[in-house]
Amino acid sequence: MADVLRQQITAGRFDAGRLSRRFGASRNAVREALGLLRDEGLVSRQPGVGTVVTTPKYGHGLDRLAGLAETLTGCGTVVNEVRVVEAVAELPAAIAERLEVAPGAGGVHLERLRWLGGLPLSLDTSYLTADVGAAVVAGDLTGRDVFALIEERTGCPLERAEVAVHAVAADANTAALLQIPCGAAVFAIERRTRVRGGRAVDVESIRIRADRMILRTTVPRGPVSG
Amino acid sequence: MADVLRQQITAGRFDAGRLSRRFGASRNAVREALGLLRDEGLVSRQPGVGTVVTTPKYGHGLDRLAGLAETLTGCGTVVNEVRVVEAVAELPAAIAERLEVAPGAGGVHLERLRWLGGLPLSLDTSYLTADVGAAVVAGDLTGRDVFALIEERTGCPLERAEVAVHAVAADANTAALLQIPCGAAVFAIERRTRVRGGRAVDVESIRIRADRMILRTTVPRGPVSG
Repeated sequence: MADVLRQQITAGRFDAGRLSRRFGASRNAVREALGLLRDEGLVSRQPGVGTVVTTPKYGHGLDRLAGLAETLTGCGTVVNEVRVVEAVAELPAAIAERLEVAPGAGGVHLERLRWLGGLPLSLDTSYLTADVGAAVVAGDLTGRDVFALIEERTGCPLERAEVAVHAVAADANTAALLQIPCGAAVFAIERRTRVRGGRAVDVESIRIRADRMILRTTVPRGPVSG
Repeated sequence: MADVLRQQITAGRFDAGRLSRRFGASRNAVREALGLLRDEGLVSRQPGVGTVVTTPKYGHGLDRLAGLAETLTGCGTVVNEVRVVEAVAELPAAIAERLEVAPGAGGVHLERLRWLGGLPLSLDTSYLTADVGAAVVAGDLTGRDVFALIEERTGCPLERAEVAVHAVAADANTAALLQIPCGAAVFAIERRTRVRGGRAVDVESIRIRADRMILRTTVPRGPVSG
């Protein structure tokens, strides 16, 4: 029941009043399901009102490569708190490998805490190749997606990204920055983005508050397309 | 650092010995990163050996619709512990709506705990339309994917599924079944599967141990394809 409710909440159709009838369920079962969703921070009990949705979840499509502000057009303004922006003389070897540049190559390191609606939504750590990084840091990192800055400032369109999604418990540092309890579930996303021609230019490690975000996609049957 | 290590572990290239050098990091920083991964259950410390990878993470592609056994071909045999298999005279209204069948329609309810390598991997609750459900329950639910049974027993190929991925803390019941600590991060996936022609036949709610699974996809830039 909690699963169906979660789905209704995220579709904007939450109606606790109709629950028992729709499920043919007992009041206790409804209470238990709402308790689970309260623990997840999705709903809260307000005296004299009942159970209300507290935090709308935003949908982030996995169908198409898009930055956060681009994805959430219409949901509000994404503000990026730029915590780190630095040129790195020598990228860590593991990062250089993921960026497919020579060992010892330089690059640009960014860390951004991304806010929407007055609450933190994600913590993004990015390493960019030296040339693309230099172009990006000359732009408006507070107001714009890195993806938009890459395309506008290098003139080179993005092609695709390889994405791996983990669900992990937030460590103390991440939890403090994202304003969630230590140990709360967060998405940990590893993303490597390539520009036209296939060159890797940006590897990111992203922590997203899972109480504020759903990842959506439509998956076709048929042969592997990748 | 923990992010890069997690990525190396899941790519099967974990090498703790080379860590400090690769990152130019202090022993304390390495120790801290490994501590995070221990908390996630990815690595453990073995006396006289050092830190070793405990639980390999399996990759589940979001590029192509596939059942678990089909996805994990080569990783071992998926065994399904069938906990519930029942005909439902009247589907819960919220489920009927998601299945796009008339209110009051019947269907089939399944609950399967899915095992791989002697450990639980996911807990799947499915509701199927009455006709497709009847065909599926006549098959080998313990040894086969529901997707395979749908295609083989109805002769109707799958077309696509709409997928929403949440990360949530495991509730007590889920945690006990999946053999993880209560509150551990799990994927909660809502999936609605359609057969050729677009008819919805299967809505699922899936809990996946996030310490055992990564979701992977390649995301193209360009217009929305869905």
